[in-house]
Amino acid sequence: MADDLKKGLEGVLVAESALSSIDGDAGQLIYRGYSIESLAEGASYEEVLYLLWHGALPDAEELESFTQSLHDEREVSEDVLVTMERLAEAGEAPMAALRTAVSMFSATEPERDAEPDDLEATLRKGRRITAKIPTALAAYERYRLDEEPVDPHPDLGLAANFLYMLTGEEPDDVAAETFDQALILHADHGLNASTFTAMVIGSTMADIYGAVTGGVAALSGPLHGGANQDVMEVLIEIDESGKDPLEWVEEATDAGRRIPGFGHRVYNVKDPRAKILQRRSQELAEAGDDKWYEITTTIEEYLTEEKGLVAKGIAPNVDFYSGSVYYQLGIPIDMYTPIFAMSRVGGWIAHVREYQEDNRLIRPRANYTGPQDQTFIPLGDR
Amino acid sequence: MADDLKKGLEGVLVAESALSSIDGDAGQLIYRGYSIESLAEGASYEEVLYLLWHGALPDAEELESFTQSLHDEREVSEDVLVTMERLAEAGEAPMAALRTAVSMFSATEPERDAEPDDLEATLRKGRRITAKIPTALAAYERYRLDEEPVDPHPDLGLAANFLYMLTGEEPDDVAAETFDQALILHADHGLNASTFTAMVIGSTMADIYGAVTGGVAALSGPLHGGANQDVMEVLIEIDESGKDPLEWVEEATDAGRRIPGFGHRVYNVKDPRAKILQRRSQELAEAGDDKWYEITTTIEEYLTEEKGLVAKGIAPNVDFYSGSVYYQLGIPIDMYTPIFAMSRVGGWIAHVREYQEDNRLIRPRANYTGPQDQTFIPLGDR
Repeated sequence: MADDLKKGLEGVLVAESALSSIDGDAGQLIYRGYSIESLAEGASYEEVLYLLWHGALPDAEELESFTQSLHDEREVSEDVLVTMERLAEAGEAPMAALRTAVSMFSATEPERDAEPDDLEATLRKGRRITAKIPTALAAYERYRLDEEPVDPHPDLGLAANFLYMLTGEEPDDVAAETFDQALILHADHGLNASTFTAMVIGSTMADIYGAVTGGVAALSGPLHGGANQDVMEVLIEIDESGKDPLEWVEEATDAGRRIPGFGHRVYNVKDPRAKILQRRSQELAEAGDDKWYEITTTIEEYLTEEKGLVAKGIAPNVDFYSGSVYYQLGIPIDMYTPIFAMSRVGGWIAHVREYQEDNRLIRPRANYTGPQDQTFIPLGDR
Repeated sequence: MADDLKKGLEGVLVAESALSSIDGDAGQLIYRGYSIESLAEGASYEEVLYLLWHGALPDAEELESFTQSLHDEREVSEDVLVTMERLAEAGEAPMAALRTAVSMFSATEPERDAEPDDLEATLRKGRRITAKIPTALAAYERYRLDEEPVDPHPDLGLAANFLYMLTGEEPDDVAAETFDQALILHADHGLNASTFTAMVIGSTMADIYGAVTGGVAALSGPLHGGANQDVMEVLIEIDESGKDPLEWVEEATDAGRRIPGFGHRVYNVKDPRAKILQRRSQELAEAGDDKWYEITTTIEEYLTEEKGLVAKGIAPNVDFYSGSVYYQLGIPIDMYTPIFAMSRVGGWIAHVREYQEDNRLIRPRANYTGPQDQTFIPLGDR
């Protein structure tokens, strides 16, 4: 029995999916057959959501109607705002606040009484969740700063509008495009732990609000969504040390310290998303302060070439470059994982809907290793 | 590749566990080696929680201290109460309200800053969640009835106190013992979908609040926790039809209707929990109205003997008898699944803690069936 133990389910195929595919040896990621590079370069996050949810890229008319729906569904209820204010005041972590917000969204769902197997209704509910997440997150952040939330901007897309609601100022084109690209890069990535969580919940035919709430919960774990924040904290530590980045990383690795942002269970080479974000980081460096780009590239070169991590199949992952990009966009460090959720919600919804089309309850087994035949002794005799 | 597809993960061993074991052919369920019959007969729900979480049944002193902690941690924050009131007013479903309540509990967690791998802190947090769930649920129910919540009773255990908070009246001994037994029967059951959800979330080293929130979300699905409610609705339909139960079930099965509460993925014979609840239902019938017991036993006899379901490995599961027991205890029908959560939270916490002791991130794979090499066409040219 124990020989068959699939702890972590590594390599176990639990579903068929036409959503995303990763070639870990070639360093390639596709969404429905389109390379992540082509989508990051040519599409908006809204187009990618449409692609994941509806199976094909939208034409202009379809995109306009889809974008309009997302616009119309951005507002969150007064109850959600009040709760975000209370949680911000209580010092609740951003991912926990987001988990509660998503769970509360269902109270105002207009199609709450739709049948569980009405998958088109599921998709519309998912769209409403996706539209509302940026609003709830920005409100939480504003309350944390003791400021009033900023109403959604009538003319901005999802990415730019989030930056606007966060700061009250319209982002410039570089910031808006960079953030939109970051959302595209994080929208789907096979059956990672949060996507799989959403699928297990969805396999009970539970509501999509529950599936997304579970996805947020899983993404909050330090082994999953938290790494981009860890990377940025290390970069700041290097900057504040006043040391040359090369000197710092030599000392750190000699001391046996693990540098976050390297290695991924499914990539043996450099993560294609890291390459795209590295270019963005370079552009931001050229337009402003180049210190973060300097530090990250120095660490990458040292670890991959000097320490030979490449030969071991350990290379920069998406988190290694996303942290410094978000930092340069002025996003608070502990909002990096919530931003990941704001994007990955697209994948969660797509996978739940796809799995529910030919649903089978997900119920594995455990190998029982405990005692047998224990004799019950009443409390008084113990 | 597709030959290896493990859709639903049926029979796949994803972990080792010393918590519960099911013999589906013999109809046996044990928690840490103790038969479910001996625990239901001799232990309280608090003792079973202790057994699952700490590995052995408590002695009198350990139980007193454990019960005291559960007592001390029952109160929920004013924010949670306000939210329960708002959700009840908005007509939110009980399981969605519970999901939000559990997610909100973390805001007042005194050990919020404990390290993710501090598993003793995880267990204490889990104890606090378990203590608070009945309070939040009862408050929601009271608000739904336009009544004020009832403060926890200083002298009652978890089961009796819940019934007290629900109605404002102390339950009699039969009701308290029956409900306590029902909680014991539902506390753990291998890697069912909600327990597995909690484990997948826990495998990211996310907070136990997130894992339990996800468990509630999964349990809310009609393929998982909703069946006892379905059973009761059918029993009421039979009662209101005015027909003889035998006549009703003959007509229903002739018309191809599926009767809920029969069959379970892991049992080929009668669920041992159903047998215990059937005896409870009989006792309640002897003390009061015997119609529900009559209807359920008539249906069971007809389906198993006349329709030969036993030969097909389809027998009554736990849901078949729990519904009518809860009904006779005066619990509203749509609270049956939340009650299941109130009990199963014990198993969720135990499994997360056990898995995290030798943790491995749970990340399966999907077999990609979508297109390759799609050429990106810009929006204007589509």
